[in-house]
Amino acid sequence: MIKFNRRITFILLLCALYNAPADEVVQSEQHDFIVESVLSDLDHPWSMVFLADEEMLISERSGSLMLVNTTTGESQYVKGLPEVAAVGQGGLMDIALHPDFSTNGLIYLSFAASDGSGTGTEVARGKLVGNELRDVETLFAALPKSGGGRHFGSRLLFDPEGFLYITLGDRGKRPQAQALTTHPGSIIRLNEDGTVPVDNPFVKQSRVRPEIYTYGNRNVQGIALQPGTNRIWAHEHGPQGGDEVNIVVAGTNYGWPIITYGKNYGTGTDIGEGTHKEGMAQPVYQWTPSIAPSGMAFYSGDMFPHWQGDLFVGSLKFQLLVRLEVDGDKIVAEEQLLQRRFGRIRDVRVGPDGLLYLLTDESDGQLLRLQPR
Amino acid sequence: MIKFNRRITFILLLCALYNAPADEVVQSEQHDFIVESVLSDLDHPWSMVFLADEEMLISERSGSLMLVNTTTGESQYVKGLPEVAAVGQGGLMDIALHPDFSTNGLIYLSFAASDGSGTGTEVARGKLVGNELRDVETLFAALPKSGGGRHFGSRLLFDPEGFLYITLGDRGKRPQAQALTTHPGSIIRLNEDGTVPVDNPFVKQSRVRPEIYTYGNRNVQGIALQPGTNRIWAHEHGPQGGDEVNIVVAGTNYGWPIITYGKNYGTGTDIGEGTHKEGMAQPVYQWTPSIAPSGMAFYSGDMFPHWQGDLFVGSLKFQLLVRLEVDGDKIVAEEQLLQRRFGRIRDVRVGPDGLLYLLTDESDGQLLRLQPR
Repeated sequence: MIKFNRRITFILLLCALYNAPADEVVQSEQHDFIVESVLSDLDHPWSMVFLADEEMLISERSGSLMLVNTTTGESQYVKGLPEVAAVGQGGLMDIALHPDFSTNGLIYLSFAASDGSGTGTEVARGKLVGNELRDVETLFAALPKSGGGRHFGSRLLFDPEGFLYITLGDRGKRPQAQALTTHPGSIIRLNEDGTVPVDNPFVKQSRVRPEIYTYGNRNVQGIALQPGTNRIWAHEHGPQGGDEVNIVVAGTNYGWPIITYGKNYGTGTDIGEGTHKEGMAQPVYQWTPSIAPSGMAFYSGDMFPHWQGDLFVGSLKFQLLVRLEVDGDKIVAEEQLLQRRFGRIRDVRVGPDGLLYLLTDESDGQLLRLQPR
Repeated sequence: MIKFNRRITFILLLCALYNAPADEVVQSEQHDFIVESVLSDLDHPWSMVFLADEEMLISERSGSLMLVNTTTGESQYVKGLPEVAAVGQGGLMDIALHPDFSTNGLIYLSFAASDGSGTGTEVARGKLVGNELRDVETLFAALPKSGGGRHFGSRLLFDPEGFLYITLGDRGKRPQAQALTTHPGSIIRLNEDGTVPVDNPFVKQSRVRPEIYTYGNRNVQGIALQPGTNRIWAHEHGPQGGDEVNIVVAGTNYGWPIITYGKNYGTGTDIGEGTHKEGMAQPVYQWTPSIAPSGMAFYSGDMFPHWQGDLFVGSLKFQLLVRLEVDGDKIVAEEQLLQRRFGRIRDVRVGPDGLLYLLTDESDGQLLRLQPR
């Protein structure tokens, strides 16, 4: 799992300190910026978190976790990771910090894990000591596991109350999204130790997996907390069309596969019963055709003042960065940036420096950074 | 996992049909009997269930499941099993039939499964079609997984209401038995589909694993339903001394490692606070020194009328079969049978023929059968 001998190209200083004239300034509606390549040669990076001003973690889907110094560009692989099943869309995926990370050092990882019955999303945590993960324990396993390499979801988010959200996909088995008896196709809510919050929406119902917080979700690969409101937003992949942005509300049925704005791949035939149904939520926003969204962040820094409160979403399929203008619980405008310039955008985060960071999902993936100009 | 070329010795007919005079008649307090070897050359068999009058399943800890015709002695390996981690005491362990097995063909298997963070008890089910297990899905995973090969528990039982009980061990990490935040060291209760029953004792408490039904259990490797009363009995391994028989009651704390009749191995030093404590259950019965119990059955057949209602327990350590006379919720007498004659007794079941069947936990393990004489 751990590879030490991979070359990590570090060209941050060149870009940042000398502001090389070759940097192409991107003009956009609200801000002009340049795109710096902070790191390259990443193997399908999936997620990133900032540990401190100069330190971050980057996961690679193949199973590696890198500890990167963003000032010096030095990086090292973290040892002691769980054994991930890198199959299809699955592998090592998201990273989240415990709310008290600064004192307890705990990080959470989502990953695909296999047993003989199949593969499923799991979440483990461990204590990061130097470049070693210690006392790793698996806190959640999406059950049942199943075959195939699709729709693992896997984003992690802590809310301000300290609850952990785990987004899942339907694993390509659509009925699981409507079933409360199975985890896949839902968003999970746990206490930080993996136990089930007593106020989860379905704990008082029989025949449920009490970890479920929402359901009818096809494949959720973006989740973010809206600053100032504490609303949790998520997006999910539709089939052919019908990618959605939703606000995550306890107990909500988001409708998949009964309602969707998408169609069946190839045939273009209808799925389910249409786009609306009583008792199933309408999305806040939807993309048809699909952009294949992954990664999501509300911009909250000072470096791009006109982007404050905007929601940024990576697009795998169209290889772009989407900026959504948000008014309360509505999306009122969309701007598409960086089309096909850098590849599939897998993750989007705001750094402690107020800059916007992107990961590209490529075999020579990059950590990119948007600097205002 | 699947081995077809192992010799299965079948000497049932010789014993049963011809009643060979070489059979040694065992004299015991209530019944005289002979012990037939139905099958031998089993690789550490762990559990058995009867599918029909002439058909049974036997698990081997190394990961095989055998479908055996008890009349002809023919056997075949079941294909499509989950991938088990055969480490230390763990591997493929118990087998249980769905209450509606005769119509739905579903069987449940408990086994040790590993991910990179460690190993833990899991339960999967699948549909048995011929000698193939289909649509296998993991319904439960004891979390967190951990290192080491000890104390997986792993007995399975359905009660008359259709709830599934899964017995666990503390995985050698004693504090887990008192923690409701972790599965190990408890007995689990689920619906047949793996969901959490809404009336489980801790579902309304915060910071719990709601699957937990009892806790303070060290390593439970025997569980059985008492005929006529529907009481569930279980036994568990103590450390050096203090093996216990308990009646399984929702929400009960059985005390490990705070109270126990056992001592620390080797040193013989005390464990915890003694043998009694408010709020922690006393065992119905305890063995000091430990017998290392595994397997358990209430005798309910017609072949040994004086054994009706007695509780039979296998002993690994002393290689014997224990017969306990039960009066309501008390054990009033113990008889030890077959001392060191056949090896470590791993499982004890009553067949549909009313005979008592045993498995010996040896590299040349046997399926034994007690016939009255």
